[in-house]
Amino acid sequence: MFESAEIGHAIDKETYEAEVPALREALLEAQFELKQQARFPVIVLINGIEGAGKGETVKLLNEWMDPRLIEVRTFDQQSDEELARPPAWRYWRALPAKGRMGIFFGNWYSQMLQGRVHGEFKDAVLDQAISGAERLELMLCDEGALIFKFWFHLSKKQMKARLKALKDDPLHSWRISPLDWQQSETYDRFVRFGERVLRRTSRDYAPWHVIEGVDPHYRSLAVGKILLEGLQAALKSTGPAERQTNIAPLGHSIDGLSLLGSLDLSKRLEKKDYEEQLITEQARLAGLLRDKQMRRHALVAVFEGNDAAGKGGAIRRVAAALDPRQYRIVPIAAPTEDERAQPYLWRFWRHIPVRGKFTVFDRSWYGRVLVERVEGFCSQADWMRAYGEINDFEEQLRNAGVVVVKFWLSIDKDTQLERFQEREQIPFKRFKITEEDWRNRDKWEVYAEAVGDMVDRTSTEIAPWTLIEANDKRWARVKVLRTLNEALEAAFAKHKK
Amino acid sequence: MFESAEIGHAIDKETYEAEVPALREALLEAQFELKQQARFPVIVLINGIEGAGKGETVKLLNEWMDPRLIEVRTFDQQSDEELARPPAWRYWRALPAKGRMGIFFGNWYSQMLQGRVHGEFKDAVLDQAISGAERLELMLCDEGALIFKFWFHLSKKQMKARLKALKDDPLHSWRISPLDWQQSETYDRFVRFGERVLRRTSRDYAPWHVIEGVDPHYRSLAVGKILLEGLQAALKSTGPAERQTNIAPLGHSIDGLSLLGSLDLSKRLEKKDYEEQLITEQARLAGLLRDKQMRRHALVAVFEGNDAAGKGGAIRRVAAALDPRQYRIVPIAAPTEDERAQPYLWRFWRHIPVRGKFTVFDRSWYGRVLVERVEGFCSQADWMRAYGEINDFEEQLRNAGVVVVKFWLSIDKDTQLERFQEREQIPFKRFKITEEDWRNRDKWEVYAEAVGDMVDRTSTEIAPWTLIEANDKRWARVKVLRTLNEALEAAFAKHKK
Repeated sequence: MFESAEIGHAIDKETYEAEVPALREALLEAQFELKQQARFPVIVLINGIEGAGKGETVKLLNEWMDPRLIEVRTFDQQSDEELARPPAWRYWRALPAKGRMGIFFGNWYSQMLQGRVHGEFKDAVLDQAISGAERLELMLCDEGALIFKFWFHLSKKQMKARLKALKDDPLHSWRISPLDWQQSETYDRFVRFGERVLRRTSRDYAPWHVIEGVDPHYRSLAVGKILLEGLQAALKSTGPAERQTNIAPLGHSIDGLSLLGSLDLSKRLEKKDYEEQLITEQARLAGLLRDKQMRRHALVAVFEGNDAAGKGGAIRRVAAALDPRQYRIVPIAAPTEDERAQPYLWRFWRHIPVRGKFTVFDRSWYGRVLVERVEGFCSQADWMRAYGEINDFEEQLRNAGVVVVKFWLSIDKDTQLERFQEREQIPFKRFKITEEDWRNRDKWEVYAEAVGDMVDRTSTEIAPWTLIEANDKRWARVKVLRTLNEALEAAFAKHKK
Repeated sequence: MFESAEIGHAIDKETYEAEVPALREALLEAQFELKQQARFPVIVLINGIEGAGKGETVKLLNEWMDPRLIEVRTFDQQSDEELARPPAWRYWRALPAKGRMGIFFGNWYSQMLQGRVHGEFKDAVLDQAISGAERLELMLCDEGALIFKFWFHLSKKQMKARLKALKDDPLHSWRISPLDWQQSETYDRFVRFGERVLRRTSRDYAPWHVIEGVDPHYRSLAVGKILLEGLQAALKSTGPAERQTNIAPLGHSIDGLSLLGSLDLSKRLEKKDYEEQLITEQARLAGLLRDKQMRRHALVAVFEGNDAAGKGGAIRRVAAALDPRQYRIVPIAAPTEDERAQPYLWRFWRHIPVRGKFTVFDRSWYGRVLVERVEGFCSQADWMRAYGEINDFEEQLRNAGVVVVKFWLSIDKDTQLERFQEREQIPFKRFKITEEDWRNRDKWEVYAEAVGDMVDRTSTEIAPWTLIEANDKRWARVKVLRTLNEALEAAFAKHKK
């Protein structure tokens, strides 16, 4: 969930200064239009890691936009007035009116996270708070509100460096954080529970935007652009005042950097190393699947990737290690008639393995946010809600002991071209290449954006994505096997504790 | 929540036999149309009290409709197959396809309730299960499903009698309930937690229908008609396959009986008794509000009722007892400009008292499901979701120690006419009667239905409605005061324990 916000996003000063004037003007214009229409309020939630630029961004937004139409609310210590009333009262009294924008700095999410990080309560109570937040936000959206949720992120290393730098800064020191961020464990817990909160509350009507906070130019432009695009879309919508559809772009890269792009596709294995490691990992997998700990687990592996990235070959190397009674490979193509008559997740639920078994999905439920999104086979509303539905689905698997491992096999465009041409030339491979593959290739960038959003929104602690550098098939196959083994070992170790 | 299902609903045999043929024919027709369109599946959830006719109703539906298009699923003990997979798998495998109907007899609600009643877990875990059910149902609705949720209810007395009668019935004895219903405490706990579950999961997209289960004719016709109307509405809707709006009627009375109608409006107090009791109750209220226990509570009283039912007079009798610094009366009329620029609950949140204080709402947030519904000031979708939003709101108040007491002052049509005429004749009362009052009077039945739905859907353990027989003003005023006192004493007693 936070991977894309740890890759060093940055915008150079020149670009920044060139872009800001137009952005400011457009934001002011949108703000004015918002006021004129007075059809809906805008609520901006600011959360995230200490030192990631939350305060600075709020300050900047106030400079950029017309501060008379923005209310910035900081919810730190509760006042006597607030303490004497139900907890939500402080948020209700601060709600912006239609036509106005409210920036909530420190909000319901801060409170639930602080409580959980401090150990004041456990996950079940955190989940109650999460459910309360969902109800509140759904109601606000149903009443017309447009909600932006920003999570400012830093890697632990980045945070430590920032805190050191900020220590002596008088502009910062006024803000007393209720958490002791100097402690490494605070960061770990905050990120762990933060992930749970984001996973659950990133819903189509109010999605989270995770912003890497290191570079001020980047984070400012990123936030400004998301606000602008979301505002413009909502101002244009002609539907009833009720239920704006927040269609702010999801993880649209503004600096050309992306998680996929940050992969080192030159990684490779020599034949000798490959053969050695392959056999080792295969034997390890076979052993793990026979381990008596498997009795309380099942294994699900999801293979997605560029066309010709080598999914089939990798799956065969996995299968080669195993007793055929232990695993099943489920290839996902167009849904059957029976499957089309059901909710889209039904065709995958059918194939969930019993404890002790292993199912390989050759393409998967992620088709919803990949091919169906890109090709327009479902509406935007459908694929927007799918991220949350898929996270719910995988959480259910995980809670039942199913280990979920998800692979994206990534190759570059040149490698794909080579492999396509090779397939066309070699008779027994010709069936593997179709017109459709060439058409998909034309949409390379659109698919790349969909993949980026998918990983950002569904790579979770309970079911993380593993990106596989697949230009070299050997490297890819060994990494797939090793990742499976590590995931199983980690699951087994948890139970041993 | 269950009050309307304890008033002895019944349909005589003659009426029943006269109505059934047409109902069956219409149901079969709707079923056929459902199959032809094959646009969405229908999911019917059957829950409720043991002995309230769940099994019999399912059997009957199967007889009435084409059983080839219905799948009845009983989820009792989990099979080995099911135990080896995530808990939701058993429901997914049983989902009806588009064009078909699935009756889930024993479902996710049964499981969470049994667990909670048995004390296997506490409220926080029950709430996690509730939230899971909400997510599942929202997703199913977003994917097009039409969901009916029936809760078959019996009062405790009725249940005991039914269980006794059923004991020797071989048609019933096959069904082994996992709960020991012979125990009075089982009933109490089941109803208490059932209320929590219904309150939380009765959402606009999948509302609950509570059916009184004593009389087989009544419960069969009630279920059949709700199914029919809901089906017909969904089949007619021309929107996209996604997100059917379930507009099955809410609590539409089919036997002429209603909770309001069951009030004994002839109740009255003699002048002497009135004066004595009034003073006693006023003194008691004054004392309770000065009690040091009030430091952790606040009191909110909601007054709704027929026009000319005597809300103002009753409120004055409450206020008369108190120090003006302790209470506030908030009269609710048309919203101000500021209030129209906010979600509808905002204008009430503003006036929530601090601990130790008392706020009287002369009309309230229930305007959403009364005047706004009847006069069409908001859309059906808006008032349908309001029941859940209001329950959430009141739960937040209650959790913060606010005691919420809600009054419906009920008079009959003749009494209203008398009072209207009196108001027109007495100069200082003339300002109290307007054209609008006469117009509302013409909509007596429509308002009565809205009031019935309101009470059914928002009379909860945390904030119950008290229906006040108000033909006699003396009776009404004393009952209002006594109810307030009893509510405060109950809240204080809870803390003392």
